[in-house]
Amino acid sequence: MSSSSAVPAAKPPMRDALVAAAFRLFLERGYEQTTVDDIVALAGVGRRSFFRYFPSKEDVVFPDHERCLADMTAFLAASGAEHEPVRRVCDAARMVLGMYAENPTFSVQRYRLTRQVPGLRAYELSVVWRYERALAAYLRGWFAGQPDGTLRADVIAAAVVAAHNNALRSWLRSDGAGDAGAAVDHALGCVQRAFGRPAEVAGRAGGSGPAPLWGAGRADDVVVLVSRRDAPVWQVVREWEAALGRG
Amino acid sequence: MSSSSAVPAAKPPMRDALVAAAFRLFLERGYEQTTVDDIVALAGVGRRSFFRYFPSKEDVVFPDHERCLADMTAFLAASGAEHEPVRRVCDAARMVLGMYAENPTFSVQRYRLTRQVPGLRAYELSVVWRYERALAAYLRGWFAGQPDGTLRADVIAAAVVAAHNNALRSWLRSDGAGDAGAAVDHALGCVQRAFGRPAEVAGRAGGSGPAPLWGAGRADDVVVLVSRRDAPVWQVVREWEAALGRG
Repeated sequence: MSSSSAVPAAKPPMRDALVAAAFRLFLERGYEQTTVDDIVALAGVGRRSFFRYFPSKEDVVFPDHERCLADMTAFLAASGAEHEPVRRVCDAARMVLGMYAENPTFSVQRYRLTRQVPGLRAYELSVVWRYERALAAYLRGWFAGQPDGTLRADVIAAAVVAAHNNALRSWLRSDGAGDAGAAVDHALGCVQRAFGRPAEVAGRAGGSGPAPLWGAGRADDVVVLVSRRDAPVWQVVREWEAALGRG
Repeated sequence: MSSSSAVPAAKPPMRDALVAAAFRLFLERGYEQTTVDDIVALAGVGRRSFFRYFPSKEDVVFPDHERCLADMTAFLAASGAEHEPVRRVCDAARMVLGMYAENPTFSVQRYRLTRQVPGLRAYELSVVWRYERALAAYLRGWFAGQPDGTLRADVIAAAVVAAHNNALRSWLRSDGAGDAGAAVDHALGCVQRAFGRPAEVAGRAGGSGPAPLWGAGRADDVVVLVSRRDAPVWQVVREWEAALGRG
């Protein structure tokens, strides 16, 4: 479900205490009604300690995104030529799920809070955007010099994020019931089959399922043929030959 | 390039005057250094007039998005069973381009401003999110009851927005040079071929281009065959027959 990079490093206890105090107050009084002073009073530390860990009150709501973004960036930077790029960005996206799944109760509470506070919603959108750009930057490097390379990179990154978040949010809306990892794997599998390199989706010849998309530039050894079901065999053969340049 | 819905209705002159005054000051002094008082003084109106048209200083930077969102929502609501849904959301996305292309100079100035001011970047992300949700809501209605219906809707909406914005932002970065409509059409065409109903991508049999994805459930009359380029013809024929259930 998650890469080993998604396992948290030991966190400073004071930081954890501030997050716990903040969420206790947010749930009791509401986010807007809670001040940083309230949080530090409950945690028993000074204001400066709060701002050492969190630039603003919003940041304490999402205490692990910066670490996750850094882990994801490092994971992608460590990629080699042996990694199929669409699978690689799907694996990178799973690191976000890993962070949410570490603590389902906290994640569900935060999800509800984020629905209620427009400022947190905007913060979350900016975080999601940064994840998407990290994935897109990696893909843009991979597809550099290819026709429509940046377009393909941006579309695949957006599709991966949308699929991941569709599954993640269903799980959060259900209060953390069910297997989030399996749901995200299923959603990302659809995107991977759609955009991954044909070698990754081999064995599905003749099916009516998704054929590889935009991957042909890297897989000259595969031909995709689309024909009407009622086409006569001779016509299919002719189209096949034409596709191979033998027609 | 744009639907007729994207043609602007007559706008109140005072509103236009406020936008013009605001942008003149933003460009001269910077966004942060300009107050609403500065804007109304230059436009020769009172503060209440400003807030009648714009809830905040940020809103004057994006004066037409609310109208465009309303137009897009109405456009999608007016869709019928005769509209291929992926083509329809692509057409809806073109309404956003139409708004930018109405006034290229203004759009390029705003793009530069948005790069510089984090608060405007966040505002823009929230607007993009609302467009994406409008497209996704329409697609979710269309795919309701189908396997992975909401997943497909969310992924397609995200792909459409990413493709549109890839082309739009290239155009804005080039200071409005070139044909934005053609670039957006090309980008959306890739997404439409990827996700649209097979009938929409007919005529590409034998090509190595994208085959329809996730659309097969609605097009039982089309078969997609993926095979190795070096596969012998007899094997292709056998796979074809197997795909048709005749094998």
